[in-house]
Amino acid sequence: MADQKKMVEAITSMDEDFAKWYTDIVKKADLADYSSVRGCMIVRPYGCAIWENIQHILDTRFKELGHENVQMPMFIPESLLQKEKDHVEGFAPEVAWVTHGGEEKLTERLCVRPTSETLFCEHYAKIINSYRDLPKLYNQWCSVVRWEKTTRPFLRTCEFWWQEGHTMHETQQEAMEETERMLGVYAEFCENSLAIPVTKGRKTKKERFAGAEATYTIEAMMHDGKALQSGTSHYFGDGFSRAFGITFQGRDNKPQYPHQTSWGMSTRIIGAIIMTHGDNDGLVLPPAIAPVQVVVLPIAQHKEGVLEAARAVTERLRGVCRVKIDDSDNSAGWKFAEYEMKGVPLRLEMGPRDIAAGQCVVVRRDNREKTVVALDELEQRIPELLRAVHDGLYSKALANREARTWTAKTFDELKELAMEKTGFIKSMWCGGEACELRVKEEAGLTSRCMPFEQEHIGDTCPICGKPAVTSIIWGKAY
Amino acid sequence: MADQKKMVEAITSMDEDFAKWYTDIVKKADLADYSSVRGCMIVRPYGCAIWENIQHILDTRFKELGHENVQMPMFIPESLLQKEKDHVEGFAPEVAWVTHGGEEKLTERLCVRPTSETLFCEHYAKIINSYRDLPKLYNQWCSVVRWEKTTRPFLRTCEFWWQEGHTMHETQQEAMEETERMLGVYAEFCENSLAIPVTKGRKTKKERFAGAEATYTIEAMMHDGKALQSGTSHYFGDGFSRAFGITFQGRDNKPQYPHQTSWGMSTRIIGAIIMTHGDNDGLVLPPAIAPVQVVVLPIAQHKEGVLEAARAVTERLRGVCRVKIDDSDNSAGWKFAEYEMKGVPLRLEMGPRDIAAGQCVVVRRDNREKTVVALDELEQRIPELLRAVHDGLYSKALANREARTWTAKTFDELKELAMEKTGFIKSMWCGGEACELRVKEEAGLTSRCMPFEQEHIGDTCPICGKPAVTSIIWGKAY
Repeated sequence: MADQKKMVEAITSMDEDFAKWYTDIVKKADLADYSSVRGCMIVRPYGCAIWENIQHILDTRFKELGHENVQMPMFIPESLLQKEKDHVEGFAPEVAWVTHGGEEKLTERLCVRPTSETLFCEHYAKIINSYRDLPKLYNQWCSVVRWEKTTRPFLRTCEFWWQEGHTMHETQQEAMEETERMLGVYAEFCENSLAIPVTKGRKTKKERFAGAEATYTIEAMMHDGKALQSGTSHYFGDGFSRAFGITFQGRDNKPQYPHQTSWGMSTRIIGAIIMTHGDNDGLVLPPAIAPVQVVVLPIAQHKEGVLEAARAVTERLRGVCRVKIDDSDNSAGWKFAEYEMKGVPLRLEMGPRDIAAGQCVVVRRDNREKTVVALDELEQRIPELLRAVHDGLYSKALANREARTWTAKTFDELKELAMEKTGFIKSMWCGGEACELRVKEEAGLTSRCMPFEQEHIGDTCPICGKPAVTSIIWGKAY
Repeated sequence: MADQKKMVEAITSMDEDFAKWYTDIVKKADLADYSSVRGCMIVRPYGCAIWENIQHILDTRFKELGHENVQMPMFIPESLLQKEKDHVEGFAPEVAWVTHGGEEKLTERLCVRPTSETLFCEHYAKIINSYRDLPKLYNQWCSVVRWEKTTRPFLRTCEFWWQEGHTMHETQQEAMEETERMLGVYAEFCENSLAIPVTKGRKTKKERFAGAEATYTIEAMMHDGKALQSGTSHYFGDGFSRAFGITFQGRDNKPQYPHQTSWGMSTRIIGAIIMTHGDNDGLVLPPAIAPVQVVVLPIAQHKEGVLEAARAVTERLRGVCRVKIDDSDNSAGWKFAEYEMKGVPLRLEMGPRDIAAGQCVVVRRDNREKTVVALDELEQRIPELLRAVHDGLYSKALANREARTWTAKTFDELKELAMEKTGFIKSMWCGGEACELRVKEEAGLTSRCMPFEQEHIGDTCPICGKPAVTSIIWGKAY
């Protein structure tokens, strides 16, 4: 009788109210909940299981590339945060300050880490002495805090979970290679594991990370045409090394400053999954990170042999995918709606007639396509169908991005597109911050990135008419 | 030429200065380092890898038992912390307070979680409505902060990493069963994975967790005879449920309060590993959690065929254990000392003569026993030898505990033992707090636990002479 009274309520349609559609999914798919702490979310078991799958794939990849995990303190003394000028200017206005320990007032305030460059640098100053100690390839999984004014679950919360890689290298070239390599890891992860096509590029000076010499980004496009910065990788040069006095004895026996990178991906990416693949029936999960990849639903399960057959199939599938059987007393209609809401990639239905015919019906979450599969071919067909879901999701997302990407040759064209459409608008750019600010003020768009794959759209900057130095993508962003 | 100048320095002998021996291992085995944040440590890659192995084993076990992971905020509003009276009294004096977000003063102070009962309860009040929603079996991996005055890496730090399970149950009995079940999981983990024998028991009222009705503990004994509380499991009754207004509609359609547990194990356990198994050459790791279980050392590696053979063996062993080859230019002597310091359970040496004879030499870290192993039997023999190391460590630790456990029938005997020995002293007890306080004041011992395996040492409490209600273990504790 369990759960008989449960109902899967419909969610707001995304065409009606995209923002409400988003938060409806977050709540009704049991991904996250609000807490009484302003701007902080509770990541619920289903959301946590998705994040753990993301962590597992990324962590394995980081380790394959030689990175090691560490745990730094969650606090940064105020004087330490202030050591690098640009960095403190960027972060000080949005940190949480600890002023008391127990009953005592602290002699120096501590901030809760908004990011950990300063802590890593202090440690590196102690443990790096020789070129033999390089590279240092460290990563940390943790949560960080930024005192945001307006928040939305996953997309922008005062506390969020992420990994932050912090590496030190002997030469500038090695550090720049690392910066690009890790951006590549993020891009590959988004495309191959999350079925999210991304554009790799460099941020403008204005959009760079505080203290970085170069920030690389992967930009994804959501259903509604808005951009979501999905992962970033920064090259710092030796600025922090100088500020923190990190030196090593080089191969020439002379003291040198090491070159630094950092790179991060956060729980924000779960927001990207929702807004790239979700539909009006709920979440749609890419198979690689779905906590349940296949849900087995026995149909007319009170009939003889159905439950046994469904359970046997579930057991067989444990070796090839993450599978779950729902043999509860809830109605088939309830179960269909529930697992659609949860975005389970494949639903496997088995009723008495299917079993008699030695088959079952597999329904794809992404396009509702039904496939009749012979029971003795399941181990082979399920992985194929999971790949098909992945490919289907990727193609659909790519098609959306292509349909929402435009090119502007003049500033008027750019402003007109910005008024009428939401998506990526490509143009040339002179590289000047004044033009970037005009686009922001007059078209309401920010620069997303200067893509690695450059296009020749023209010779001049459409805003000021001066010679162009790069092609650039403009958009509205989350 | 890498690392030629490196030296493995000797550490302080444990007989000379046990505390210094401990911190020497922490630093020289690269487990942790100090940071500029008072009382907070940096967990270095080797320490982190040990913690990840611990996490993996425990997390898998928790999930097998139906627990789900969540992530709660790291902050607790002051008013929320105050909802349960005993709890706030226990924790308020030792929390870190956030008073400012960016430039703004907060209207209500937030503490950095010292433990998360209050956050879980607030969430449970929202999501528990019916007996059908129970049990709720949640766990969280995170770091917590307690403003300790004196700190030592792993043993007591202001910030430490742990898991905290928080569960809600329909009946008192189910909750009490969960409390014992999870203590059993910890005990089994310590004995089967860490080779640390533990004593299961109940804490006295004085030593209970703030707000709990019962606290169960596993107590381990360190080399020096001191006790280390290695994991605890608490039964809360419905005290928090009442304070937080958590009710569910029972099977009888009436509102009821659910019964609660929490349980935790922390990075402290790494301190227990060091102090249970370590020796004067460094760390000794139980195989189940050793980041490297077997280190392959090619001897005279410049000679023809040695490196190739050692690398081939390493590749073969990847399927059966965590293996690493050290083919650096460091001397064999340096490598021996380095991997002894790091506590790698097995060292596999292969020189030209071994290879010619189709064999290698495997040396156990725990007792230096050398075994000649035929190369074609490695896949079978290495797992056997790893089990032998585990068993050897367990037996040695158990022997130490047995040699340092005494029984006191009179208070004089108890005080005399306390003066002369460090270890577990067993006696009967009346259950009165006055007697517990006298043992503390006059013998300098705290109660470790009332063991589940009760012993009949006498009929009366040796302190006051009143009828005894339980046997109890006294000791000095970390």
